[in-house]
Amino acid sequence: MSFDLKAYMDTRKALVDAALDRVLPPETTAPTTVHQAMRYSVLAPGKRLRPILVIAGAEAVGACADTVLDTACALELIHAYSLIHDDLPAMDDDDYRRGRLTNHKVFGEAMAILAGDALLTLAFRLVAANAAAAAEPAVVARVVGEIADAAGTDGMVGGQVVDIESEGKAISAEMLDYIHLRKTAALIRASLRVGALLVGGSPAQVEAISRAGQSLGLAFQIVDDILDVEGSLAELGKSAGSDERKQKATYPALHGLPTSKRRARELIDDTKRMLEPLGPPAEPIRALADYVLERRS
Amino acid sequence: MSFDLKAYMDTRKALVDAALDRVLPPETTAPTTVHQAMRYSVLAPGKRLRPILVIAGAEAVGACADTVLDTACALELIHAYSLIHDDLPAMDDDDYRRGRLTNHKVFGEAMAILAGDALLTLAFRLVAANAAAAAEPAVVARVVGEIADAAGTDGMVGGQVVDIESEGKAISAEMLDYIHLRKTAALIRASLRVGALLVGGSPAQVEAISRAGQSLGLAFQIVDDILDVEGSLAELGKSAGSDERKQKATYPALHGLPTSKRRARELIDDTKRMLEPLGPPAEPIRALADYVLERRS
Repeated sequence: MSFDLKAYMDTRKALVDAALDRVLPPETTAPTTVHQAMRYSVLAPGKRLRPILVIAGAEAVGACADTVLDTACALELIHAYSLIHDDLPAMDDDDYRRGRLTNHKVFGEAMAILAGDALLTLAFRLVAANAAAAAEPAVVARVVGEIADAAGTDGMVGGQVVDIESEGKAISAEMLDYIHLRKTAALIRASLRVGALLVGGSPAQVEAISRAGQSLGLAFQIVDDILDVEGSLAELGKSAGSDERKQKATYPALHGLPTSKRRARELIDDTKRMLEPLGPPAEPIRALADYVLERRS
Repeated sequence: MSFDLKAYMDTRKALVDAALDRVLPPETTAPTTVHQAMRYSVLAPGKRLRPILVIAGAEAVGACADTVLDTACALELIHAYSLIHDDLPAMDDDDYRRGRLTNHKVFGEAMAILAGDALLTLAFRLVAANAAAAAEPAVVARVVGEIADAAGTDGMVGGQVVDIESEGKAISAEMLDYIHLRKTAALIRASLRVGALLVGGSPAQVEAISRAGQSLGLAFQIVDDILDVEGSLAELGKSAGSDERKQKATYPALHGLPTSKRRARELIDDTKRMLEPLGPPAEPIRALADYVLERRS
């Protein structure tokens, strides 16, 4: 019997959505504007891929979703903050995201900046509380530190910096990998990894999951680039071809579409091979890897 | 013999400045631009009040500076990130800070936003590492969580939100206290408090230090408002009267200068009274309280 990914994603997404609603301050609590702005972006329709990966990482080493739910939410808050700031006029200047107006188009630039800052701050609060409840002392600090590393200048922020600086320039394949590994793969890798770390995965298990997460993250970004060329507004929730208009460096622009598609498939194969030592409990991650490759948005 | 505050601040500041230089990524490490932007703002001349308060909080319960140095740096990084984002065109739109061009005037808006994001991220990494080295398991999570609370929407970000929303409006004395308590006092209180928490201060000690920190933080902001009315560019590193030009709600605008000065003095007296149970080890905090009241910049 094949794994029912849709049922898996639906149940995990429901858990995550309920938890996000619980951890975000209510819209009616002062200061209301920033809480509205935070909820607007985080609770927008989304795949919840990163939080589901945190859960799948924990499940792959034999724990259940409840034990990592706060950290799963934290990863989604960090993802949401990065989108809000990336969309700002001074950055990518996007009007639409996930099919809705971007945060600053609704709440203004000042509130969008502050909402992003607040989401990043709240994320670390959630990680600390979750880690303390679930893990040994050394693990609390390790998980906070690893998420900070994945989100900082050697991770997500660093990728965004080089991405912005590379706009309109010819860049090498190495530089494009540098951007992709940091801007997207670092947080996806961290999601899987801290899920396993938090619940006491062995060093060998955590290492296997980390390597799988890195390949998965890189594949995710390449597929994103492919969809930007091929997709429609309805599928992506943003205008197709927006990377090209902004003269963003992309995998298809540098390597062509056929090579990009082949590379994405290879990376997903790598992901699944790296998960072999984990056996059946890693089945959800394998199915999620196929989903990352085949998704249309 | 009276306490030599100048010698105290000079030695602690030297420790903090050396530690900041150590924890910030080198300017030559990629991505270099954002690292330059981070260092530009953090290493600008400053009083290092918050990190010195972290140290003084630890010393007040009998520990030494070295044990809390990373967290001391973290509080300075959070302060620096908040200044970078507050100065952005979409926020307070300031060209000068601490007598130098603001971050976005030198590095551009995109890099200033990202440098702020990176500093906040790095701050939590430092707190986690420091807490893990210094403290019991439950304390790691507590310190990360308390700093996140002080920096989030019920703390610094929340104060900034209401401050921005109140520009040009008549606000009540209660609302002004709401802004001041969150925008400034929350992080100053947290600085003292986590210093004591990290090194194992007793609940009574931590409570006394927290209450002292709250009064000190409120006094700090009232004195800031007074200096904005009375100070010069040379003393403040920014234009005097800038609050008035921006139609910012300030304590002198609402209560007049004489009442503001009396209130600041009362709060400093409160601060010192709350520190009485701590005895001589709290002498540096008492001297710092006098300094906060009497400073000219």
